[in-house]
This record gives sequence, C-alpha cells and structure tokens, in this order.
Amino acid sequence: MDMQTLGREAKATAHKLAALSTKEKNNALLKIADSLQEALPQILAANALDLEQARANNIPQAMYDRLKLDEKSFLAIVNDMRKVVSLPDPVGEEFDGRVLENGLKLLKRRVPLGVIGVIYEARPNVTVDITSLCLKTGNACILRGGKETINTNIAMTKAIKEGLKKANLPAECVQYITDPDRAYVTELLHMDNYVDMIIPRGGAKLHELCKKESTIPVIIGGFGVGHIFVDKTANLEKSIDIIDNAKTQRPSACNSVDTILVHKDIAQTFIPMLAKRLASKKVAMVCHKGTENLAQVDNATVEIGKDEDFSTEWLSLRLNLTIVDSLDEVLEHMRKYNACHSDAILTDDYQNALRFVNEVDSACAYINTSTRFSDGGQFGLGAEVAISTQKLHARGPMGLTELTSYKWICSSDYLARP
Amino acid sequence: MDMQTLGREAKATAHKLAALSTKEKNNALLKIADSLQEALPQILAANALDLEQARANNIPQAMYDRLKLDEKSFLAIVNDMRKVVSLPDPVGEEFDGRVLENGLKLLKRRVPLGVIGVIYEARPNVTVDITSLCLKTGNACILRGGKETINTNIAMTKAIKEGLKKANLPAECVQYITDPDRAYVTELLHMDNYVDMIIPRGGAKLHELCKKESTIPVIIGGFGVGHIFVDKTANLEKSIDIIDNAKTQRPSACNSVDTILVHKDIAQTFIPMLAKRLASKKVAMVCHKGTENLAQVDNATVEIGKDEDFSTEWLSLRLNLTIVDSLDEVLEHMRKYNACHSDAILTDDYQNALRFVNEVDSACAYINTSTRFSDGGQFGLGAEVAISTQKLHARGPMGLTELTSYKWICSSDYLARP
Repeated sequence: MDMQTLGREAKATAHKLAALSTKEKNNALLKIADSLQEALPQILAANALDLEQARANNIPQAMYDRLKLDEKSFLAIVNDMRKVVSLPDPVGEEFDGRVLENGLKLLKRRVPLGVIGVIYEARPNVTVDITSLCLKTGNACILRGGKETINTNIAMTKAIKEGLKKANLPAECVQYITDPDRAYVTELLHMDNYVDMIIPRGGAKLHELCKKESTIPVIIGGFGVGHIFVDKTANLEKSIDIIDNAKTQRPSACNSVDTILVHKDIAQTFIPMLAKRLASKKVAMVCHKGTENLAQVDNATVEIGKDEDFSTEWLSLRLNLTIVDSLDEVLEHMRKYNACHSDAILTDDYQNALRFVNEVDSACAYINTSTRFSDGGQFGLGAEVAISTQKLHARGPMGLTELTSYKWICSSDYLARP
Repeated sequence: MDMQTLGREAKATAHKLAALSTKEKNNALLKIADSLQEALPQILAANALDLEQARANNIPQAMYDRLKLDEKSFLAIVNDMRKVVSLPDPVGEEFDGRVLENGLKLLKRRVPLGVIGVIYEARPNVTVDITSLCLKTGNACILRGGKETINTNIAMTKAIKEGLKKANLPAECVQYITDPDRAYVTELLHMDNYVDMIIPRGGAKLHELCKKESTIPVIIGGFGVGHIFVDKTANLEKSIDIIDNAKTQRPSACNSVDTILVHKDIAQTFIPMLAKRLASKKVAMVCHKGTENLAQVDNATVEIGKDEDFSTEWLSLRLNLTIVDSLDEVLEHMRKYNACHSDAILTDDYQNALRFVNEVDSACAYINTSTRFSDGGQFGLGAEVAISTQKLHARGPMGLTELTSYKWICSSDYLARP
C-alpha cells in the first residue's frame, strides 16, 4: 500500500471539508447511509467471507458474535449514521471573543482537526460510526480496522465512497487501509505531516504501541481500575443496587467497577448483604483484609486476593473487596492503584462527598451514582469517539466537540501595535 | 541522576498542589520571589561562572547576551513572578453543568494537569517563568534548561526550593535536572507514569526529538512560515506600517513575517513603496516572479529567490516577496508552504477578509493587523507558556488555562440508571 499517497489525498480534502456547511455535511451523511443500505447484499456477502475465515481460525465465540452482521444489526448501524444528522454541529462556534485596549478584536472559532487516524479492532460498526462523527465535524479520516473484519470493512468503505461521490464530496476524505500488514499501522503513526490526531480503540497493547511509536498526538483512553467506596453513612440498600449495576450490567466495559472499599463501621452488615446479591449474579469476590469471612454466603464464589489484584482491571464478573478505616485510606489506595477513569463514593456525608470529588484524580468522579454512566451517549454528548484517560485535549467521554480544534481570528483597523 | 525518583517525588506532590487555594498558591509565589531576591549575590555569582564558560567556548554574542544576568534584569524576572499573583487562577472553574433527564447532574471542573516537563534553551528567565505558571495552576514541574545556564539554573532552583519550604509546600514540586547529559532528556520523555505533558521550548531539532521519542503528550509549537497577503483594496500606506512591524520589530520571533504576497493590480505601486521602507530597515528582499525589478530601489538588498525559500522561516531580516493573481492563489500558496502559525490579509474587501480567515489553516488568522500580536501577553492571557502550532489541546498562544485539564463530576440520588 502507498500510505503516503493515502495520507496526502486525505489531507488535500481537509480544507474542502472544513468549508462545508452543516446542511452539506448532513446531506452527505444521508447519501452515505443510503449507499450503505443499497449495498446490503454485498456487505453481508463480504461479512460471510470474514465469518468463514473466523470459523477456520477458531476465533473465540464472543469475537465471532461481534463480527457477525445480519440485516437487522446492519440496518441499526446505518440508522445510527442517520441519527448523527440531528446532532448539533460544533464547527463554526465562536467563543472567548473580546476587544482589547489597543483595539485588537480577538475570538476563537471552532474548526475541524483536519485528518484523524483511527485504529480499531474487529467491530464492523466502528467503520460507520467513525465515518459519521468525522464527517459531521468536517474531518477527513484514515481507518484501519481489525484483520478479522477486512472484507466487511472494504465492502462498507466502498459504499461510503459511493455515497460521498453522490454528495459531490471527494471520496478520499474517508480512507481505509486495506492491507492487514501491521507495518502499515506503524507507518500511519509516523505520518505527522498528514495526520493531526490518532485514536486507538483497542487493548493495552495497541495503546502502548501508539504511545511508543506515534509522532502524532494520540488519545490514550479506556483504561483504569474502577473503585467504589461505601462510606459508613451510605444508604446500604441503594448502594447494593449501584454496585450491582456497576459490576454486572456489562462486565467487559471499561467503566465497570473493579474494587469495592467498605468502611469498617458497616462492613459486618454490608458485606454479607452485598455478597448475597453478587452471588446471585455469579460475581466472584476477590477478598482482601479478611473480608472473605463476611462474604462467605450461600452460593458465593470467594477467593483470597493478592496485592496485584488491586491493579487489575477485571473486565469480567470478578470484584476486589476490601475494608478501609477512613476516607484518607480510600484516597491513598486510589492514588496507589491508579484510579484515573471512573470512581465513586456512596455516602450521605456532605463533607466526605465534597472531599472525594475534590481529591480523586479520576476523569469522572461520582457521588451516589453508578460508574457505568461514563459514556458519551449517557452524558448527553450524542455520540462517543473514545473515553480519554489522559489529561491533554479531552478527558473522559469524547463527543463531537472533542473532534475539533479552534483558530484565533484577530482583526483591527491596521493601527493596533504590539 | 535518578530520574525515576525525581519523577515519583514530583508526582507525589501533585495531589497536594491540586488541593491548594488560590491564596496559598499566591503566598507561595511571593515567598519564592523573596527567596530569589535574597539569593541575588549567589545567583549572580553562579551566572558569572556560566558566562566565563561561555566565553571559553566562544558562544555567539546573541546567546551570551541572553545568558547574562545583572541585578536589574534579575529583579525584573523576580518581579514577573510577583505579577503572576494578580492573574486569575483558572483552577476550580466549573462549566458545562447540566442535569440530564434521568436525574444525573454533570459538570466539568478545571483541575491541574499534574506534572509538566519543560525542556528549554539557555534563557535563565524560563526557569522562574515556568515555575510561576506551573505553581499558579497547581502543577508540579520537572525542568531541564540549556547546559550553558546550568550554574545559574541550579542556584535559582535552590532559592525556589527554599521559598517553597517557607510557604510550607513540598520542595519536590519543582524539580531540576542538574546533569546536562542528553540521555536524561530522553529518559524524561519516556516517564509517562509520572509526567502528564511535555513542553519543548527550543529549536526544530528539540521538537523533532520530542515528537519521535516522547511517550507523553507533547505541545509542538513555535514553527511555521508567516504570510501577509496585500490585497488590491488594501490601504497601502498602512500596509507598509504593518509589514514593517511584522518583519522588523523582532526578526528572531516565530510570529514575524516570512513571505509577502502582493496582488498583481497594485504590485507596480506598492512594491517600490514597500522596498523603500524595508531598505531603510536593512531588510533583504528575496524576490520571486520578477518582483526584483520593482524592489530595486536605492540601498535595497535584492536577490532572486528559489522555490525552497518559500518554505523557510527566516528568523532574521530577510523576506520573500512575490506577486499573486487572486485570493485563490494565496490560499493555495499557503497550503503548499505550510502556513500554520500566524498569517494576515490586508484588505478593504469584506468578502475577501471573511474568506481568508475561513479558509486558512493558521493557528492565528489576522485581518489588517500585524502577525506580531501572536503572543500570550499581547492576547491578554497574562502569560505565555508556549505558542502551539498543533491542533490538540490548545492552539496558538497558551496561557494559564492551557496548563489545566478538567474532571467530570457526576452525582445523583443513587437512583439514576444507565
């Protein structure tokens, strides 16, 4: 593959995309959705090839399920693209405007980033989602999906390019890396002359590769051990509902909880109640500081935890359980075990609630609320590009606005002098 | 040097700094300023050692002048630190607050980034400036100045740490890399477990090193070819004043102009006028497209330009001069030659002014104004950390706010469900 040509072509479209009106961008989204829908037979046929290969390779069932498209699931993806039409367009917003003493008029105007590179795993919906969000914000994109979905992605990209042409937009504004060779990922990460931002959507290895190799700014995200502290004043019944939700609603999500810290004064009462509920949901309790004695209820799966378990993001139905003496101890524990994503306090103590949100270094700090809310859709952002756990540019759930930058626009009557 | 210890110590202070009130931070700034002032004899003695070494190494006069401190210049630096006290503290600002339908209350709160690594050249004022701005925003910092100022910087850092102790703050929140070995810069760039942002302040080589090596987000900035387009409707007398200012006020600044594009309809009149003024200021004209015939006035230094000169950031009294047929040609030229910093149109044509600011991809787009305004102080930001020419996080002049991130604070009555 000639990656440099791919990059140059994408970059060349960026100034055209930046100049589009919201109406033109929405029209393009609808035309692309139509093209995708028309290509349904070809896309399902391509997906069948990927599934055949997947069976031949004995890939895990969960991955196979994510890979598989049928008419219903594909049309849902296409309709998600149509929904992006109704989201507000952040591009063109002007803010921080003012006139300085010397007569200089200043403002910031929100503009697209330019070209966004996205590297993701075997979820065919990401190809359509990212195309929608980039196009809505006037950005070109270079996509590289998992090799397991290559036929599906190529068929979808073909339909996307046809839709772009119908909308009189350059087909090169959505580029797909069709060669599964990993060397092209590395080359993409070095194309800082053409690409303005890299979004890796995948596991820890992919993020490490991007951190190490990329000469382009990268959005690191989706990692972090999730904590919930149950204070002695917490409403215990409601706390159990919250922990149940935070652990079991979608255990594989990055915003699900990994460690429960219980105040010593309520441990005797609360831990057996919690253990009973979680046993009914098949959650294995990884117990620290003697909590195994309190968690040992009927049907409970209980094991003794090791220190390194506190650093583990389970992504499954497992949960650390420990006892703490004070909020100080909670805060120290969270600093030690890298709380940086979504963490909660459950309390009716106003001072403790304030102190918790003031002092934790989490992207999202919660009071009496499930950490599962950390999601662009749930936060009312209308969409989610990624959940950033770094501090530059954007933190936590990223929506359309986070796919933009700004330019300063400065004017005077020729006479202002620095 | 044990860089890991340096990093761990800095990181350990970050949550303490984040919790300080504005009053406490301002008090610390005043205490540090006093400590620096008290250490004046020791700091000037250390500076004398650096100057002696500089003479022995025959460093260029301009660098020697930047290096040299005397009582007056040093007290000006210390007073700049005192001025930071009066700047507004961005930390703690809350924004984008709202209550969602499901009862979830959301807001973003501005928080420090954590630990900031700054790598800079032989300007002793940077050590004090960065300390002020980081401390005011509750950030710890790890500093690495040029080897030419090492004795001065070590003496200043010692005084800074004494001031921190007097203010009852941990001395480890300002760390200085005292060993000039370049290997420690590379090690710093890999310390993503401790450092949240890297700001390189120096030449192209340093920025390339940071882009290539850093696993920490980097602010790339200060580069870009500066353009001014003189449209056929521009006020010619006033345009000459602006170009004079943009080229000669401080030729070595990154926001000074490199290329003048003149509309063909006014070239015959304007270029000789401009050449006359610039000849009086000893500016060498690098002429393209036959402009040498028009620029050849008394005392003018005129030479024939080559295509690669359009890609050159002169940082000196040299200036490209060319003729264009239209605004389209200007925009195409600017895209080709990487306009990304500060660029201006001089025009009385409303449509052209709008189109220029809409379509250029510059961090700062100017109408009838000198590009020399691109500066945190001039923009009223109160301070300047860097001028970003990348699009992530911040673009253009960066002040105190750009040394912060935000956290999401999310609360409900236990009952909201995702």
